[in-house]
Amino acid sequence: MTHVFRYERLATDGPARLGRVHTAHGIVDTPAFMPVGTAATVKAQRPEEVRATGAQIILGNTYHLMLRPTAERVAKLGGLRNFMNWRGPILTDSGGFQVMSLAKLRKMTEEGVTFQSHIDGTKHHLTPERSIEIQHLLDATITMAFDECTPYPASHEQAAESMRLSMRWAERSRKAFVARPGYGQFGIVQGSVYEDLRRESVEALAGMDYEGYAVGGLAVGEGQELMFQTLDFTCPMMPEDKPRYLMGVGKPADIVGAVARGIDMFDCVLPTRSGRTAQAFTRRGTVNLRNARHAEDPRPLDADCACAACRQYSRAYLHHLIRCDEILGLMLLTGHNLQYYQDLMRSLRGAIGDGRLGDFIARFEEDQARGDIAPLED
Amino acid sequence: MTHVFRYERLATDGPARLGRVHTAHGIVDTPAFMPVGTAATVKAQRPEEVRATGAQIILGNTYHLMLRPTAERVAKLGGLRNFMNWRGPILTDSGGFQVMSLAKLRKMTEEGVTFQSHIDGTKHHLTPERSIEIQHLLDATITMAFDECTPYPASHEQAAESMRLSMRWAERSRKAFVARPGYGQFGIVQGSVYEDLRRESVEALAGMDYEGYAVGGLAVGEGQELMFQTLDFTCPMMPEDKPRYLMGVGKPADIVGAVARGIDMFDCVLPTRSGRTAQAFTRRGTVNLRNARHAEDPRPLDADCACAACRQYSRAYLHHLIRCDEILGLMLLTGHNLQYYQDLMRSLRGAIGDGRLGDFIARFEEDQARGDIAPLED
Repeated sequence: MTHVFRYERLATDGPARLGRVHTAHGIVDTPAFMPVGTAATVKAQRPEEVRATGAQIILGNTYHLMLRPTAERVAKLGGLRNFMNWRGPILTDSGGFQVMSLAKLRKMTEEGVTFQSHIDGTKHHLTPERSIEIQHLLDATITMAFDECTPYPASHEQAAESMRLSMRWAERSRKAFVARPGYGQFGIVQGSVYEDLRRESVEALAGMDYEGYAVGGLAVGEGQELMFQTLDFTCPMMPEDKPRYLMGVGKPADIVGAVARGIDMFDCVLPTRSGRTAQAFTRRGTVNLRNARHAEDPRPLDADCACAACRQYSRAYLHHLIRCDEILGLMLLTGHNLQYYQDLMRSLRGAIGDGRLGDFIARFEEDQARGDIAPLED
Repeated sequence: MTHVFRYERLATDGPARLGRVHTAHGIVDTPAFMPVGTAATVKAQRPEEVRATGAQIILGNTYHLMLRPTAERVAKLGGLRNFMNWRGPILTDSGGFQVMSLAKLRKMTEEGVTFQSHIDGTKHHLTPERSIEIQHLLDATITMAFDECTPYPASHEQAAESMRLSMRWAERSRKAFVARPGYGQFGIVQGSVYEDLRRESVEALAGMDYEGYAVGGLAVGEGQELMFQTLDFTCPMMPEDKPRYLMGVGKPADIVGAVARGIDMFDCVLPTRSGRTAQAFTRRGTVNLRNARHAEDPRPLDADCACAACRQYSRAYLHHLIRCDEILGLMLLTGHNLQYYQDLMRSLRGAIGDGRLGDFIARFEEDQARGDIAPLED
């Protein structure tokens, strides 16, 4: 535990960085993947199971928590970490993204955004000041600035206007943040796929001296190539001595490519959501366990994985659970996917530390391209 | 582990018995409660979590498993214990009860029963011989005889006819059973609420020399009073040197009353099913965690319970999970209920061993009658 929030860079391999984020609630080794705990739970997992995969930090969603059980109630119950029994740092998003993707009857002004809950239709108001206050009530270790996630595609003019609104909101967000030892706030770089706008955004945020910087407005439909191109010019603009967080990313190959370009932190619903739809991530690509080819297969899902699903059960059993809509199926697959993601991050950290990230990526791509093990002969 | 299936009676307190069932796959301390693992999983629990509550044996359902994934497939994959990774004995029912309660277009003859699957409408045939073969393929530690669970109410004539069919099926079941060291088969006493019929049934079965005896045809709507009355005259008729299993029972008070009357083993979906409907069993009666009174309550569900839900979380958090339909809510509540049931069995065993079962029951009833803790003042 530390009383100073800081980023420590331990090694580099090209643009890739091996590091450590020190926080009031524990250390986060980077590059790091943050499992998503939307409504104060990483779905279908006990927090100690999430921790056991190697996850050191999780993400909570301001939008969901402000609606249920409300930020004031979480505060009364000791903050999000105590409420959900997560013994480590938590990063909360600002709520802006979910308002745009989930809420009904949204109305955006300079002041903020008014919307109706997707759950019960109640009316709510979110501003930079209120978003930061909510995250404070949740006792988030890392608070995100309130921004507008620019949709894709956006013209240069639209992207500029949206980004500049986010920068004005970033000023207000920074002002509203209550600094506390070991706690931090991240600003969010916007500007869509335009280099000049990303530069303008980075420069505006750097002047506000955040504890970290996120890249927003990616993984919104632009595709991996354009995402990587955007990172290629954006990452070098960002402060070297602060952690860099790519929001909402992504597939394993997206993460590997972004790490190679200098990103330190990630979050994505993919491992948990896929765990509820029979999709498993493995060293040889994705496997759909609903497929009948697994029905009598006594082999583990991924022979190189140390998770309970792979150590204790056959593909045939996992297939059976999924076919029967058994909750244990979701539990085991979610656990496996989270383990896969953390194993990937651990391997990436090891490769950067050893200065052999290029070799690692070549082998990663080769393994993924091999595809699943051959079905058993009858 | 033992190579002889046997029941060891360690102490008695009135009709109540403290004992141990030795099996090929481990010891079962009795009175024992068997969590139900219908489709090769105790719903929403990992097997090691079930074990950690103190459960030493679980129940599997022949009807569900013969349909999915099929008994032949389970056999190919090493039997039910290996398939689902349960490291202990398993008792399987005969399938007859579920055919009557779940399947469509049933047709019963002297030979057996024909029915359509409730899942996909496929046609199946179940006879005493096939039921025992399926349980053999599942590698059940304890196999149940195939019977007809006499519905309630039944006239004396109906009950007699049904019981005598079950006794003829019991003969065939016993003949079909492949004896193996440490494995056992239980016969099922029928006869509804009629003393003469229960006596006739017990005597018929005793002649077949089963390794244990079950009381069937109770907990089917007759109510607790009539169930206890039936046990009052049935238990004393049953062999003293064999385990006695009351099928499908029940609520905590049902179990306590049945133990006091000489029953050794129980199974019921109540703790697991209730765990999925926000209902919790506690030392002070049942608690519905969906109720708004729990929304800001920082206290544990049951302060005297050692389960994860009670040690690590508040009522407010459990309430939140349930309101949000979060899977973790089902996981935690199911785990709690299973822990409650096993704690109850442990307490009953302790009380019988100490010769103070009467005191225990008086305190149990008093505690249950107290009702839940008072709501917090605002």
